[in-house]
This record gives sequence, C-alpha cells and structure tokens, in this order.
Amino acid sequence: MLLFCASFALSAQNRHFFPDVEGYHTLTGDMHVHTRFSDGDVWPTSRIDEAYLEGIDVICITDHIDDRHKRMVKAGLFNCDRNESYRIAAKHGKKKDVIVIHGGEVSRGMPPGHFNTLFVSDNEAIAVLNDAEKDHYKAMEVSLKEARKQNSFNVWNHPHWSSQAPNETKWFPEHTKLFEQGLMDAIEIYNGSEGYSPEAHQWAIDRNLALIGGTDTHNPIALELNFNAGVLRPCTLIFAKERTVEGVEEALWARRTAVYGDGMLYGSEEVLRPLFEATLVMTKVQFHKKSCEVVFENRSNVPVVLTKAPGSEEVHYKRFRIVHPQEKFTMWINGSDYHGAPLKVDEFYLSLYVENYITAPGKPLLYKVKLTRPQ
Amino acid sequence: MLLFCASFALSAQNRHFFPDVEGYHTLTGDMHVHTRFSDGDVWPTSRIDEAYLEGIDVICITDHIDDRHKRMVKAGLFNCDRNESYRIAAKHGKKKDVIVIHGGEVSRGMPPGHFNTLFVSDNEAIAVLNDAEKDHYKAMEVSLKEARKQNSFNVWNHPHWSSQAPNETKWFPEHTKLFEQGLMDAIEIYNGSEGYSPEAHQWAIDRNLALIGGTDTHNPIALELNFNAGVLRPCTLIFAKERTVEGVEEALWARRTAVYGDGMLYGSEEVLRPLFEATLVMTKVQFHKKSCEVVFENRSNVPVVLTKAPGSEEVHYKRFRIVHPQEKFTMWINGSDYHGAPLKVDEFYLSLYVENYITAPGKPLLYKVKLTRPQ
Amino acid sequence: MLLFCASFALSAQNRHFFPDVEGYHTLTGDMHVHTRFSDGDVWPTSRIDEAYLEGIDVICITDHIDDRHKRMVKAGLFNCDRNESYRIAAKHGKKKDVIVIHGGEVSRGMPPGHFNTLFVSDNEAIAVLNDAEKDHYKAMEVSLKEARKQNSFNVWNHPHWSSQAPNETKWFPEHTKLFEQGLMDAIEIYNGSEGYSPEAHQWAIDRNLALIGGTDTHNPIALELNFNAGVLRPCTLIFAKERTVEGVEEALWARRTAVYGDGMLYGSEEVLRPLFEATLVMTKVQFHKKSCEVVFENRSNVPVVLTKAPGSEEVHYKRFRIVHPQEKFTMWINGSDYHGAPLKVDEFYLSLYVENYITAPGKPLLYKVKLTRPQ
Amino acid sequence: MLLFCASFALSAQNRHFFPDVEGYHTLTGDMHVHTRFSDGDVWPTSRIDEAYLEGIDVICITDHIDDRHKRMVKAGLFNCDRNESYRIAAKHGKKKDVIVIHGGEVSRGMPPGHFNTLFVSDNEAIAVLNDAEKDHYKAMEVSLKEARKQNSFNVWNHPHWSSQAPNETKWFPEHTKLFEQGLMDAIEIYNGSEGYSPEAHQWAIDRNLALIGGTDTHNPIALELNFNAGVLRPCTLIFAKERTVEGVEEALWARRTAVYGDGMLYGSEEVLRPLFEATLVMTKVQFHKKSCEVVFENRSNVPVVLTKAPGSEEVHYKRFRIVHPQEKFTMWINGSDYHGAPLKVDEFYLSLYVENYITAPGKPLLYKVKLTRPQ
Repeated sequence: MLLFCASFALSAQNRHFFPDVEGYHTLTGDMHVHTRFSDGDVWPTSRIDEAYLEGIDVICITDHIDDRHKRMVKAGLFNCDRNESYRIAAKHGKKKDVIVIHGGEVSRGMPPGHFNTLFVSDNEAIAVLNDAEKDHYKAMEVSLKEARKQNSFNVWNHPHWSSQAPNETKWFPEHTKLFEQGLMDAIEIYNGSEGYSPEAHQWAIDRNLALIGGTDTHNPIALELNFNAGVLRPCTLIFAKERTVEGVEEALWARRTAVYGDGMLYGSEEVLRPLFEATLVMTKVQFHKKSCEVVFENRSNVPVVLTKAPGSEEVHYKRFRIVHPQEKFTMWINGSDYHGAPLKVDEFYLSLYVENYITAPGKPLLYKVKLTRPQ
Repeated sequence: MLLFCASFALSAQNRHFFPDVEGYHTLTGDMHVHTRFSDGDVWPTSRIDEAYLEGIDVICITDHIDDRHKRMVKAGLFNCDRNESYRIAAKHGKKKDVIVIHGGEVSRGMPPGHFNTLFVSDNEAIAVLNDAEKDHYKAMEVSLKEARKQNSFNVWNHPHWSSQAPNETKWFPEHTKLFEQGLMDAIEIYNGSEGYSPEAHQWAIDRNLALIGGTDTHNPIALELNFNAGVLRPCTLIFAKERTVEGVEEALWARRTAVYGDGMLYGSEEVLRPLFEATLVMTKVQFHKKSCEVVFENRSNVPVVLTKAPGSEEVHYKRFRIVHPQEKFTMWINGSDYHGAPLKVDEFYLSLYVENYITAPGKPLLYKVKLTRPQ
Repeated sequence: MLLFCASFALSAQNRHFFPDVEGYHTLTGDMHVHTRFSDGDVWPTSRIDEAYLEGIDVICITDHIDDRHKRMVKAGLFNCDRNESYRIAAKHGKKKDVIVIHGGEVSRGMPPGHFNTLFVSDNEAIAVLNDAEKDHYKAMEVSLKEARKQNSFNVWNHPHWSSQAPNETKWFPEHTKLFEQGLMDAIEIYNGSEGYSPEAHQWAIDRNLALIGGTDTHNPIALELNFNAGVLRPCTLIFAKERTVEGVEEALWARRTAVYGDGMLYGSEEVLRPLFEATLVMTKVQFHKKSCEVVFENRSNVPVVLTKAPGSEEVHYKRFRIVHPQEKFTMWINGSDYHGAPLKVDEFYLSLYVENYITAPGKPLLYKVKLTRPQ
Repeated sequence: MLLFCASFALSAQNRHFFPDVEGYHTLTGDMHVHTRFSDGDVWPTSRIDEAYLEGIDVICITDHIDDRHKRMVKAGLFNCDRNESYRIAAKHGKKKDVIVIHGGEVSRGMPPGHFNTLFVSDNEAIAVLNDAEKDHYKAMEVSLKEARKQNSFNVWNHPHWSSQAPNETKWFPEHTKLFEQGLMDAIEIYNGSEGYSPEAHQWAIDRNLALIGGTDTHNPIALELNFNAGVLRPCTLIFAKERTVEGVEEALWARRTAVYGDGMLYGSEEVLRPLFEATLVMTKVQFHKKSCEVVFENRSNVPVVLTKAPGSEEVHYKRFRIVHPQEKFTMWINGSDYHGAPLKVDEFYLSLYVENYITAPGKPLLYKVKLTRPQ
C-alpha cells in the first residue's frame, strides 16, 4: 500500500522566501542535484517533493554522465539512458509546479575538474564522447563543445573541492583555454559540501561569469541539512522575466543571479541592491522633536545583518542589528554626543553596511539614504 | 563529487530511546519499509541512514514482490531479483550497526489483503507463485506457505487500510482460514499512514498474535514525519535476548513486542509493566512530617502521561501530570481534605493510570505501589 | 544598559492564527494570567510581549487580590494598589496592539473555590471585602456581588484543580447558589496546569455558561509551554464584532467563545461550525470520469483531524487524515468496492467527523456536504 | 492556584554542555543579568529557572544600583534595599543547584561608562556614594574603590555599546587611570545586545584582563534568544577548581575564563587548547594500506569548525568540516595528488585551524598533531 502523499508544510523557518524585484520574479534554484540515476540515493520524484516543501522554484537534474552509468547498467541496477532522471523529474515537476532543468555533470580530473551543462537535450551524445578520451582536458573540451551544440550553459563546479584542490583553490591554464573558447559561462561559488569559495567569487567577477550555488546533494536532503536548527537550502537566486524554463535560461545568460548559502547572499551590486530594497522596506520615516523614527520590515525569510557605516557620525543609531525573517523593527535616530541626546540636524544620511549581502569577497553592500525633516 | 557523509545528529527530540528491561534489550524496529526496488522513492542505503539518525535498531525491508517488479524491469528501471534491496541494505546496515531483516510484502485484494513475510531467504520463490494465481485468497495462501517453508514470520498488514476497508475494519472468514493453518503470526496494529486500529489490537489479543507497528514508508522519511514538531517514528519495540537478527526473530515468535505510535505505547501487561518500571524510575521516597515526597525520572524519550487512579482517595497528589522525556519530577503527597492539608496516614497506595501505555483497546496500564512511613 | 527590544518572530508553529468568521473577528485571549503583583514571577509588560509574539490578541490580568498582596507590601516588595499590574499592562498593551482586560482572581477554599472577575474597575473594593470574611462561600458571594456592581463578568476557575478536587470534579450546592443569583457567567473548562475538564464542559453546556480557557501562567511562558515541540498557548477564542475591550466584553456576554487547548477546540456547534468552514476551505470540486477530486486548505495554524463519518458508505475516501497548518490537500473520492474502483454515483455525501472540534464531551463536529456531478 | 513547576527539558540543542578539563570544572556563567529590581522585567527566581533549563551553572545578579532604584521606591513599586534581588536569587539557586554571585552594575556616562562589580557584600554602600557625585569619572572611581573594599572583581561592561560609543569603540585616558589603580580586572568582550568587540578583546589581551561574556538580559530570556533556531546563551566559561562561589572567584582572579557567543569561543591559547582537546577527542587512529583513518568525537554542544591549515600539503583530507554537537566523524587521509590517491608517507602532520576557537582578534586556534604509522 502507498503511504498518502506527504504534504505537511515544513516550518516556515526552513522555507525560502524572497520578494520579487522590479521587473523580475525572484526564483530560487538548486542548480546541482544528483539522483539514483548516478551516485545519489534519491529518486528524481523525491527531489521535486523536497524542493516543493522548501520553497525552491527550480531544480537542475545534474547526474554524472560518465562511466558510473555504464557500471550501474552492468550491475543490473537500471537499464535506461542518461536522460531518464530528467524525464521522471520533469513529469513530477509539472504536478508540483517546480521548474525542472535538463542537465548533466561531466566529471574529469583536475584540471579542469567537473562541469555542469544545463539546458541540454541529450546527455547520451555528451557522455559517449566523454568516455572516449583519456586526457582530462581534451575529454572535457570535447564534451563541452558537444553540449554547446545543444545550447548548453556551462558551469565550472566547486573549484574548491578539497579532493581536487587539496591545499588551495587554483585557476589553471586549462580554465583559461575553456573560458577563451566560450565554454565556461558560470562558476559554482557555493557548494553544499564545500561551502563558499572567495577565490571562485573573485574569478567570476573578473570574467563576468554568472554566480551559481547548489547543494550537490546525493542523500535525502534532510540528512544533509539540519532543518531542526533552522537551516535554509543553499541555492541560486534567479531574477527571471517569467517563471519558466526559458525565463531561467534567459536570466542565467544575462548574469542576473545571486547565491544564497549559510545566511549570506553573494551577488553583484546590480542584482543585490534591488533585492535588498525589496527585502528591507522602510515603511515609515517620522521626525519627532528630538529624534527620528524609521520603521523597517524584513520581507524575506533570511535575516538581514546591519552595521552602522561611515558617513553618519553626527547622528546616533545602533551600531549592530539583525533584522529577523518577517520582522518589523523601529530604529531611533538621535544625536551622537551622549545616550539619548536630542537630534541636532534636520538632514542626515542613514548609512548601513548590509553585512550578509556580499558584492565581492569581503565587501558588504553599502546602503545610504538621505533623510530630511519636512518643513 | 560526493557530498560528505551526512552525520549530524537529529535533535534528541526526534531520536528513540528506551531503557533495557530485566533480561532483555529494548530494541526499536520499523517492520514495514519500502525502497526504490518496489514503489518507494528511496534507495536502501538511505533507509539505513535514516534509521541510524532516529535511533531505530532494526529495519525490515519489505518491498512489494508482485508484478510491479516485473513492470519495473520491463521499463528498464532496474534488472535484478527481488532480494536486491535487502542485500544493499544489509551491507550498509553492518557499517551503521543497524539490524536488517530480509522480508517482502505480498499484496492481494481484500480478503485477505496484504501480508509481510519476515526472515525469508528468497523472495523470488514466493513471488513467482504469487503471480501464478488470480484468486486473492488462494494466491496469498500459496505464497505464505512457500514463505513458511523459508521459516517466515507472517504479519497481516494494516487491516484498517481505507482502500481495502472503506467503511469499517473487518476480520473475514479468509483470515480465520489463514490463522487456523498457522499462516498468520502477527497483526500490524499501527501503520504510518493509517494510524492505530483498535479492532486489530483486539484481534491480536484474542488470538495471541504478536503486535507489530511500522511506517510503511515510501518517501524519504523526513517528508512523512514532521520532525520539526518533535515527532518520533512509529515502530515496534522488541524485547530481545541479544541484539542480532536471531534475537529479533526469537522475540517475535515469543510475542515480546509492543508498538509505539503518536506518543502511545500498545502492548500486553507482561511487556508494558517491566518497560514502564524501567522507564519511570522512582529514585526517592521520603516521608516528611506533613507530607511524602516521591521523585520520579522518565528515562525514555517518550512522555509518560499519568492520572490519579482509584484506590488513593485518602491522600492528595496531582490528578494529571505529563513527565517529559528525561525529566525528573517531584510528586508531593498530602492529605486530601484541603489544599496543603497534612498527610494523615502512615501507609497508603500511590495509584496511577499510565494513560499512554495501553494494554488493550481503551485500557491504560494501572500502576499501584504501597508506600509506608519507616518506623 | 538596556538590551534592544526583543522582537524576533517566534517560529510560525508557535503563533496562533485563525481566520475571521462571517460578521466577527476571531480573537485569541488568555483569560487567566498572573504577574509579579501577586504570586507570578513576570512583570506585566512581559505578559504583553509574550502575547504579541504568540499571536494572542487579548490578555486578562487576573492577579490574586487576596492577603498575598498585603504580605508583599509588608515584605517591602512593592507598595501599590491591586490595580497596578493592570495599569502597567494596559499601557504597554497599547504599544503592542494587545487588548488588556482589567480583572482579578478571588481565591477561596472549595466550595466554591476560585473565581475570576473580568472587566472590573477597582480590585481594592473587591479585595477588602474579600479579606473581611472567614466563611469561604460567604466571602466569595460578597466579593462577586461587589464585582458585579462594577459590571464584572465572573468565571469559575479550574473546577478540576486537584488541590481542591483531589479525587473527582464536583459541582457543589454552593455553585448552584451563585449561579442562581447570576454571579457565575462562565466556567474555565481548560486550564494550563490542569488541562481539559469534561465535567466542567458539560456543566457549562447545561447552564448556558460561556466556555473559557486560560493558562493560569505564573512563570515566564516559555518555561511552561514547550515551544520547541511546536506547542501553541491554550486560550479562549472570542468572536467579536470589533477588536476592542468592548468587543470582547459583548462577545463574552453573548457566549460567542470557544476554547483551544492541546490541539483541540471546544465550543458549541453554533460557534465551531462557522469557524470550521472558514478554516478548512474547499477550494475545488471536480468530477472526473472515474473519481471526484476535492481540494481543501487549512487556513489556521491548528491541525484539522478528519475521519470518515457514517452516511458515505457507497463512496471511498481515506478514513483518517490530519490536515496540517496551512496545508492544501487533495482528497480523491472513488467507488468503495475495491482499491481504485471507479466512482459509481453522480451524487453523494462527503461525511466527516472533525475529531478535534468538540461540541460536547466526547462529541466531534459532523461535517456533511452533498456533492453532485454537473450535468 | 499555582501552575505546577515547569520542568520540561529544553531541547538539547539549547542547553550548554562542555567537558571538564584536566584539573578544572568547566562552568558556564552569565555574568550580566538584570531583574525586576532594577530595569529588568523578570523576577530573580525566574533567572535561576532559566539558567537551570539552559545548563548555565553560574548567574551574577548585576542590577543597576543607581537612582533608578530610588525612583522605583518612590513610585511604590518596591521598598527594599539594593541587595534584595541577590538574596531572592541566591535562595532559589540553592534549590536548583545554580551558583549565584552577588553583584551590581555602576552606570555612568562615557567615559568611563558602565562597570559590574562582582562578589560584593553590600550594594547600598556602593550606591550611596555613587549617587553623591556629578562627575562621571569621579563617581565611578569612588564607587569602584568602595566595591574594592568589599573585595569586588570589577568588569568594564560593553565598551562597544552604541549608545556610549556611537561611531567607534574607544579606550579613554580615564580607563587607563582606573586600570592603573587596579580598579579594572576584566572586560566584557561579548554582550548579548552588542555582540563581540574585537577592540575590547585586544585590550584585554594587552593588559592581562579577564575575558567576560554576558547577556545583559532585561526581558524573559526566551524573548531575547531564538531558541527555536537552536541558539545557545552567550556566557563566560569558567575553569574552576571547585563548583562553588569561591571556585568561580578564584578562577576569575586567575584569568581562567573564555567567552562563548554566537557559536564562537574566545580565549587565550592557555585556556582554549585544553578545552579543545577535551572537546574534540581523537578516539581512533588507524593506518590502512592506502590511507589513514582518524575518528573524532565532539563532546560539547557547540559545533567545531575545522579547516586544513598549512603544514600538511603532502597529504589530503577535507579542507572544511563542521563537527556537529555530539557528532562522531571519520576523517580519511590520503595522498594529495588526485582524488583517492594512496597515502605515500608513513608520518605526517594533521594541521587544522579551529575556526571558531579564537585566541586573539582574527586568530583561530591551530591544532597540529603528528601521526606515525606503527612499525
């Protein structure tokens, strides 16, 4: 007998929620996911059910397309082609309104390591070629070129994976070659197992590559994320014109992505600023006789971490404040000479670093707004 | 790349823990589990990882052994025999110290419905025969007889499954026939999807069948149990002489089982009384001038729900108390005439119903102990 | 220095939320709360902060007004009148948009026990009289009469308190006397320490008394409720024409209340039926060729527990289903002769017991709706 | 009526636990706590109940001793001396086995700001003098000298409090004067409202002052800490020869403290190294043919965050790993040339940074151990 479909909602603390920004849907996507059809332990349908519960809009099925597949077939564990996991997931995705991307992972020794190819049409073509070569770089180049014929979007995965980068994270000449041929479109700067790589983040900035985050999950997700401790799934934020596969594709090519992991958001100023302004909304500004009152609301499920930034020395407000998910909080602005001093100016800047919105390694978003007492 | 083995501990509130009882290990077992090798969505290894995290000692792999298997092979999803899921699980069970039982589920229309056969050696033999017959009862009889040749222990599953018992839970003449031939050894009185069946509980008592509980899980377990709300997995408690497959087998044949589900424990007085006494331990009894102080400790992870039972009218203590997991609490016993009245007797009974230890439908365990002031 | 105002949101699982019903606001109120101004350990402002975090709309400050007060003044712990805790709470309530009711608890031996007097204007007048008498009943009568002069609404508290009802819950002749003089308007059928009393529930039904629930909290609430396990605060549901003190008062006199405790709702059919219909909303009914599909949404934060009720024998749907908070679920209705049988009728009743909406002791709400295939 | 004593255990994820170290008890203490007897909202007994539930061994009652007290007395809110909150807490502490320290907070404008005086005998003497002076520095000096006559241990509180340090955290000449007179023994480098101050941490190191952490809690603690998200209370770790007030006092004077806040531990190498070695225990080292297996157990309730440190380039192991509370994990060490390469050396260093054990601002503890293959 079949257990009834499990559909209770995860506690809100484990669900992603971000507001849309002007002109774009804010979608969350896990761009790196394995299933039982390579070396994951999870059936493709469960990947969709998991995503649905966690507020994840997009799942890229990126099973390994290498020899592992052949070995599984040989062992009698399955007997189907390398597109089967996508097909199963895509069908179930329609039921649950989760967008499913057809992808695959090409795994080679370092350099150049592993690449995900997204929006492909047939992994078999890519994989056969992949098996044919012994030279790591050559094999990858051939595979990526075949994938590109299918109009793939190529991501260099986890440059900081300790198995391939045992002591430091390196960009090899081979990466330059792939990049220069237009075969590298993005870098995975956050990976569920390895965390964030500042090196990869910087390389992506320097070369205008899209920022990608994914879990690289192999087990049932609840064995990998500590939901009881309020963890949210690492993912890519995609600012899409429409909530479709094509919408996601267009956004990736246009570099309109950011990355969420461990409470931090990584992205260019162009994408993070509108996201921040849609997230932490100033709902009230009122000048009182001796102070100014500002009310903020955090409209996302991610805490916003604020510190006072330079440029506001003449006024006083708290130097550190975490605005919790969905929290409304009131900031009081006074004079800075002693505790509770009256506000002495009629116009000032409110300057804040958003410590968990990171525009480049070590660089938080600066938010600065001029407030003026009405006449 | 492989995500590092997920091994964080679930919060203690989601882990089973029961103390051992005199002469026996108290084991927890999920006796009804599906994997990807029938219609579950989970690979056998994940079933072990899940059990390990939840403090489950025993997993019975009970994939359907019927035509579904053939259809999967035909569809190219796998190509292996009906024992493969057990083999994969058993191998991983050794690594994680989880006991794995070789089983299978024989699914027929009602009557007689579905049966699990545990401790088998070859599901293929049972399944082939199962496919050969069109008559529900006949086919089941043939399969159970074959399983019995393999020394199986047979469980009637979820008599209250609404798909086969749409309006009421019934015992059919066919069940009498199977029972009289010795082909039914136990009933599943708690099923993850259907909950508890008082009818099944009563039938098991009337015929001295073992009490069995299982999840019948098909999805990743965290999609079925609300861990965030502190839920513990439904299971069978097995009082085993040793922590081995053989120990479990001996205990089942000897009817030394109880069932946990939704905060309740179901079992005969013979098994629940020693479990209760090992669980809620009286660590101190002290007579004061005007009162008597008793300290209890709950040494399990399941709350103990106590109410005052008849037989203690001359003394006063709280009429209702939940003793939370691992909680130590002090009960004050006074006279019953007014709030805080002095204790007037030197000897009395402390009588308690344990409202969540159920020895028969509607009947809680009665705990009664005589306390006497030392001379 | 002062710690910044604590304003993070409790996880949604610990916040009350009920939809409004036709013509009324659905308010939640804790009608029995102590502070440091009697024998509680919490300052009145914190009672408001707690309520705000938990989605509690109304707090009744019901400090003991008896000798305890005098003793505290003597001990130098405070020096103010018996209305001070209300004043402090009311002021803070305005800031946090929590409605605060001026009340007090008159505590006497049993019979008649303890009574809360709500909507009073001066506890001093009630208390002085209260101290003057030695006879339990007389003293209570005098106090309640004085309170009634202040237009109080009087609640008999926790008739099942084990300190005053050591072996059974009793209605004494003294309660009849108070009732017949119009000095008893409601009974507390759920109390945070004692839980639910079916006896009290029945008495309230028999005499048309309002149903009241409260925590009777003395400690910080997070020391009394296990928030980590997803517990919601026991409370009174008040169906008020407006969200004001006067609105609450009118609703209480009109008996438009229900009681929430431990996942159960207690109330008359008149109040529970509209609440249920606003809570579990049928958002879709579609007849397919061989089945009927019905979609329900639970719009509250309390699970809804459904079982199949008599009257629907000719169709099949699940016999048991918990609809979790904010969950949307699809019920499939088929024929009842075997698993997956085609629906054979074009019109039928969907009959459900709502097992946790209790209209009288042991009696769940029956929900029955006729569904007809469109021509 | 009194609600039964709330004694359920908080989920283990919210309880502190650290192993003892060679020769010392590892105690946790909240060294900065307010109650209703200054501007807190909580009765002293609740401070003890909270500590008990959270595994906090030591509570310092540090109510403000300034004019606020006088104003409260005037307002009739209480009428007792400035030692009353300590007395109430100390009495209740005995019942719950929580150590209570008699302290007070002297609050002045900056410089020099606020100081806690611990282990005092009479706050009245300190306070009266405190009220007598208008000059911030002078008043503080006089108070601290009086406190010192009572053998107090003096802590400079929250140098980074934004109300007194609106734009940067500064050490003033006045602090030098107090320090040089021996009137400053410690600095609060972590404060519940302000978080961690690297500046204060560095000053404490430079002048051999004890490191102190405290919550500065004014509200019920569950309104300030997000227990649902698994937060642990910020505190001071005290390595004491005995679990008594005297033991705590001796440890503070000897500078045997560390500070816990937000998942980080701050302390000198002398105290953090033995704590780390008692916490992350290497329970197994086994050389296999092609690899070396090391098993670690985290014996605390705080995650341990490890990264690979320089000095182990010739071998490969994961570059990043969080060891969760009570987790046992196996580290595999291989050769570093490619994924899964055989170990090529018979002796090597395992070098790890413990990223959340901080010995100086920005400086994690380095853990380095030589492993040698047995002959």
